[in-house]
Amino acid sequence: MSLPPLALLLLGAGGLRAAEPGGGGGGSSGSSSAMEELATEQEAEESHRQDSVSLLTFILLLTLTILTIWLFKHRRVRFLHETGLAMIYGLIVGVILRYGTPSTSGHDKPFSCSQEDRPFTTLLVNVSGKFFEYTLKGEISPGKIHNVEQNDMLRKVTFDPEVFFNILLPPIIFHAGYSLKKRHFFRNLGSILAYAFLGTAVSCFIIGNLMYGVVKLMKLVGQLSGKFYYTDCLLFGAIISATDPVTVLAIFNELHADVDLYALLFGESVLNDAVAIVLSSSIVAYQPTGENTHAFDAAAFFKSVGVFLGIFSGSFMMGAVTGVVTALVTKFTKLHCFPLLETALFFLMSWSTFLLAEACGFTGVVAVLFCGITQAHYTYNNLSVESRSRTKQLFEVLHFLAENFIFSYMGLALFTFQKHIFSPVFIIGAFVAIFLGRAAHIYPLSFLLNLGRRHKISWNFQHMMMFSGLRGAMAFALAIRDTATYSHQMMFSTTLLIVFFTVWIVGGGTTPMLSWLNIRVGVDPDQDPPPTNDSFQVLQGDGPDSERRNRTKQESAWLFRLWYSFDHNYLKPILTHSGPPLTTTLPSWCGLIARCLTSPQVYDNQEQLREEDSDFILNDGDLTVTYGDTTITANGSSGPHTATTSLDGRRTKSSSEEALERDLGAADHEVTSRGTRLVFPLEDNA
Amino acid sequence: MSLPPLALLLLGAGGLRAAEPGGGGGGSSGSSSAMEELATEQEAEESHRQDSVSLLTFILLLTLTILTIWLFKHRRVRFLHETGLAMIYGLIVGVILRYGTPSTSGHDKPFSCSQEDRPFTTLLVNVSGKFFEYTLKGEISPGKIHNVEQNDMLRKVTFDPEVFFNILLPPIIFHAGYSLKKRHFFRNLGSILAYAFLGTAVSCFIIGNLMYGVVKLMKLVGQLSGKFYYTDCLLFGAIISATDPVTVLAIFNELHADVDLYALLFGESVLNDAVAIVLSSSIVAYQPTGENTHAFDAAAFFKSVGVFLGIFSGSFMMGAVTGVVTALVTKFTKLHCFPLLETALFFLMSWSTFLLAEACGFTGVVAVLFCGITQAHYTYNNLSVESRSRTKQLFEVLHFLAENFIFSYMGLALFTFQKHIFSPVFIIGAFVAIFLGRAAHIYPLSFLLNLGRRHKISWNFQHMMMFSGLRGAMAFALAIRDTATYSHQMMFSTTLLIVFFTVWIVGGGTTPMLSWLNIRVGVDPDQDPPPTNDSFQVLQGDGPDSERRNRTKQESAWLFRLWYSFDHNYLKPILTHSGPPLTTTLPSWCGLIARCLTSPQVYDNQEQLREEDSDFILNDGDLTVTYGDTTITANGSSGPHTATTSLDGRRTKSSSEEALERDLGAADHEVTSRGTRLVFPLEDNA
Repeated sequence: MSLPPLALLLLGAGGLRAAEPGGGGGGSSGSSSAMEELATEQEAEESHRQDSVSLLTFILLLTLTILTIWLFKHRRVRFLHETGLAMIYGLIVGVILRYGTPSTSGHDKPFSCSQEDRPFTTLLVNVSGKFFEYTLKGEISPGKIHNVEQNDMLRKVTFDPEVFFNILLPPIIFHAGYSLKKRHFFRNLGSILAYAFLGTAVSCFIIGNLMYGVVKLMKLVGQLSGKFYYTDCLLFGAIISATDPVTVLAIFNELHADVDLYALLFGESVLNDAVAIVLSSSIVAYQPTGENTHAFDAAAFFKSVGVFLGIFSGSFMMGAVTGVVTALVTKFTKLHCFPLLETALFFLMSWSTFLLAEACGFTGVVAVLFCGITQAHYTYNNLSVESRSRTKQLFEVLHFLAENFIFSYMGLALFTFQKHIFSPVFIIGAFVAIFLGRAAHIYPLSFLLNLGRRHKISWNFQHMMMFSGLRGAMAFALAIRDTATYSHQMMFSTTLLIVFFTVWIVGGGTTPMLSWLNIRVGVDPDQDPPPTNDSFQVLQGDGPDSERRNRTKQESAWLFRLWYSFDHNYLKPILTHSGPPLTTTLPSWCGLIARCLTSPQVYDNQEQLREEDSDFILNDGDLTVTYGDTTITANGSSGPHTATTSLDGRRTKSSSEEALERDLGAADHEVTSRGTRLVFPLEDNA
Repeated sequence: MSLPPLALLLLGAGGLRAAEPGGGGGGSSGSSSAMEELATEQEAEESHRQDSVSLLTFILLLTLTILTIWLFKHRRVRFLHETGLAMIYGLIVGVILRYGTPSTSGHDKPFSCSQEDRPFTTLLVNVSGKFFEYTLKGEISPGKIHNVEQNDMLRKVTFDPEVFFNILLPPIIFHAGYSLKKRHFFRNLGSILAYAFLGTAVSCFIIGNLMYGVVKLMKLVGQLSGKFYYTDCLLFGAIISATDPVTVLAIFNELHADVDLYALLFGESVLNDAVAIVLSSSIVAYQPTGENTHAFDAAAFFKSVGVFLGIFSGSFMMGAVTGVVTALVTKFTKLHCFPLLETALFFLMSWSTFLLAEACGFTGVVAVLFCGITQAHYTYNNLSVESRSRTKQLFEVLHFLAENFIFSYMGLALFTFQKHIFSPVFIIGAFVAIFLGRAAHIYPLSFLLNLGRRHKISWNFQHMMMFSGLRGAMAFALAIRDTATYSHQMMFSTTLLIVFFTVWIVGGGTTPMLSWLNIRVGVDPDQDPPPTNDSFQVLQGDGPDSERRNRTKQESAWLFRLWYSFDHNYLKPILTHSGPPLTTTLPSWCGLIARCLTSPQVYDNQEQLREEDSDFILNDGDLTVTYGDTTITANGSSGPHTATTSLDGRRTKSSSEEALERDLGAADHEVTSRGTRLVFPLEDNA
């Protein structure tokens, strides 16, 4: 029987016990069969016990990690991050398992039987009159048959690679999306998107090509004992381009480093994970067409690009749609009276995103990321106060456990994974390639972005971004996903070493690097940007001030403004209890729909939301600046009230350029003096 | 490869994809093999997609359930509880899956190959030169071979029964232990233990024997087409004796029904689950010896009793030990500064209880229950305020999801489970048997307990307990665990019907029943018992008051007092930050150890803990009544302070009888007038 995922959770922990061939349909109950049953049962129990022990090993490992993390935090040790620590413990346990446990061969030798056709997924075996069902586990290369049962304990602690993709990554990625510091993220959206999409593509391409050179070299020197295609090199480029500055960000958080740099790094790494996943899928999709040649094939290339766009946009849509549905459900029900139900619903809907995307053939992890962002942007506003903290805490715990689990597993895998291929040339080549690949996307892209950016990304920020390009959970998960061939095994071993090296070195070096690069720390992340917005300027020192002022009108800002006003005027009011009432933003002929969709809380809460929410509504062309606390002082009384708002709100017609000047606070127009927090332009509910 | 449990979570959701026979060690890459790979890959993807869809079905089902629960709660509908609702939705989806989906036969027909010996757990199959690994799934009775691949969708939604035991029950049971309202639970501990142990055993035995009669009758009438042993009947008795008044308790909670009745019902059901699990394991352990006879065998019987005691005490120890370890870890580290770490540690330690017990051959679910109680009793006191709410909420959500999942699965299973055997005679017999079984343990036990109890369990309480004996998740999980034989299949189908019937009828009838039996509602569960403690008396009406006063000296109270003083004086101070300092309770020669083990907070917090904690220390023989706020008014300053406490505390020497009189507030001695809350005798931190 093929079972749904959850069902199989148990196969290891007792599945065999359940599947014990006991009874046999009410018929045979002879003495020998009873003894046989007993033997099988005992074997199954033994297997169940071993599974429990191996899982227990991981849990104790995590417990130990937690205690040491506490000790480190307690003593303010910063040279080693918790993820690095988890890896070290994993390494130690890996060594013990590898060299400390006896190499027990399996209790029953595998049985061979021949079959002409291609393999079946289900197998029925007739054992002295009884039928037993078997399921396909996978192929074993002929040379490894005798290794299959080599060491029980090593096999027990080896996980199915898909565990990472379907169990451990989703909570990590969802939490990343859900905990996004939206204001700073959206302020730097253009740059983040550029780094994530262009940057990852550039990095992937450069690393891929450099590695192809290395592989060619290895072939010349005679160090290559298997096939290594160009697409394999590109795949390696995609895998290793997934940066994971979890360590850096943790230290940033602790030291309260510059929020814009934080937003750039965080945004880049979150989105670049998604890009790397989809990129590697596309490269894999490229392969089959070029059967033997593995040369460039225009059709296959465009197919790959199509696959990339298809998967990415599909996953994005899935995530956004489930997020929106959750927002609507939480808005139009009074579920917030029952935080437990609300939290459960939130959890289930977020999980269903993953399954929905997987069921439709998209990438669940990517969908989950966008679902997280949508949930944070819309649904979060509808939740009760208790559910807000509940959902945050729930995903925080899941994220923490999953992340530390992955990192300790990485440490373990260095010794327990049985198909490592360490090639010094390849490894050195890879280190050089990732360094060049990162440099080749950070510096040129920053230069290009600085042409358009109002707040230049200064040199020290660029160096810090360059430095922070460490590889982590995502690169590991992508690399372990397929370790069937020679090239993939070599890529996996190399990735593992790169992760170790970058996590330890970069993790330990962040604090010195921050002070060396003179990046300011101790910034309150929830604080508004200072009115003069000169955080970059101060650090940059030599930034030409006048030049910057001339470049206020930029494409991304325009696009962003358009989206923002649409979001603020229509999406927010439709999906949440915040924003202006739809009755004021929609044309009058939509009156009925607008009244239906606008929740009564909007009128009631308008005043207080004005405080929380952005007060700065930018319409392209016709810029409306509304000050929340100028007119509304009484408690909101629905109908007429809303009309007053738009009438009494000070309307300022001005050119887009002026608006942005004021908006970004570069002009000396001190909007904050009127008693409103100038939050440009997105609120910060995080 | 055999994988640890978590790993297998993924086999369903993409395991095959990972295990795709791609590459094959860097060798073969011919055109036909490439096509073959592609086909296998597509098949694996298809399977992964179907798994996602089936899991999605369950999640949407749960989402729907949550929304309807909200609607019901919102409209204060009480005739149908959420669990009943989940079952109904499950039923509907089951009907759709059963009759609505086309009966697709599997894409590849199972392949048969013969084997002489007993079945192997691992099978290597040679398919045109490549080796594939297969694992044993279970036996199929010869007549059912053609049903194996009958309906893909039905098979997809059929879970491995061990999922219930290893994934879904633990959070439910742990939450039950963790959320125990300790004060009321411990006040009625004697009665609860009697109901849980004696009651369940009586119920199991009576139901087993009655069902054996029914089976004999069926054999006479010719309605029995398979074997049905006496041990099967006893197993059925054990399975169906696991009561699960989740519905009743939910309604009690909502209506704030009498706290003592609540404690009796809750305590009984929680412990009786544990008893039923262990009882059924013992009965299964009884079977093998009586090979063909299946008659009474004294040796086997005593072996079973030994197994029962062994498993129960072992699981109890495991749970208690991990709880104590967690308490010590949280006490002696400053982990409470980092609630995330604390919560993660708490979660991991609680989970490790389960694995530890399973690894040692005990019952994880039972261990988890006692771990939950220990955690609530000790560790909870050491947690930071944030972690307290975090852990509670985390397990509340897990419990909620798991419980509703089980109940919707039950609804689904009625139609999707493919081996149902509905025998009208057996079903009617079972209904009668569970009614008689419950009656035969509630009424006689209550009578016996009332002989010793100070607060009689009145008739209406007994009737309510009789009525509340509905069967739920545990009975289902026990029944589905083994459905290999004819008798077990019939037992499973019958259990399913009993669960449906009792959940719907009893769930809907609780509110009318409460008012009909005149049981008071609207009691504040956190409120102290009224000083006169006449809740029973008032309801009982005709209870002979004088007779009750004479029976104050009872065994259980004595035992309980002993345990309580030990717990309060030694365990609490060692394991938590509360309780009296060890320096005062331990003999003077233990001074150094006592000072090491007593946390500084004890001295600091002593005053405030006095308020929270019980102030009533009962020593057998020498009864010390300490009033918390008589002496200590300044902030506690360690050493000398503690000495003062025991000196200044009013010492009252009196007979045990008098003490209990005062203690239970039946004597008119108004202790509360002295400004202390009279909390007998356990604190309520819940």
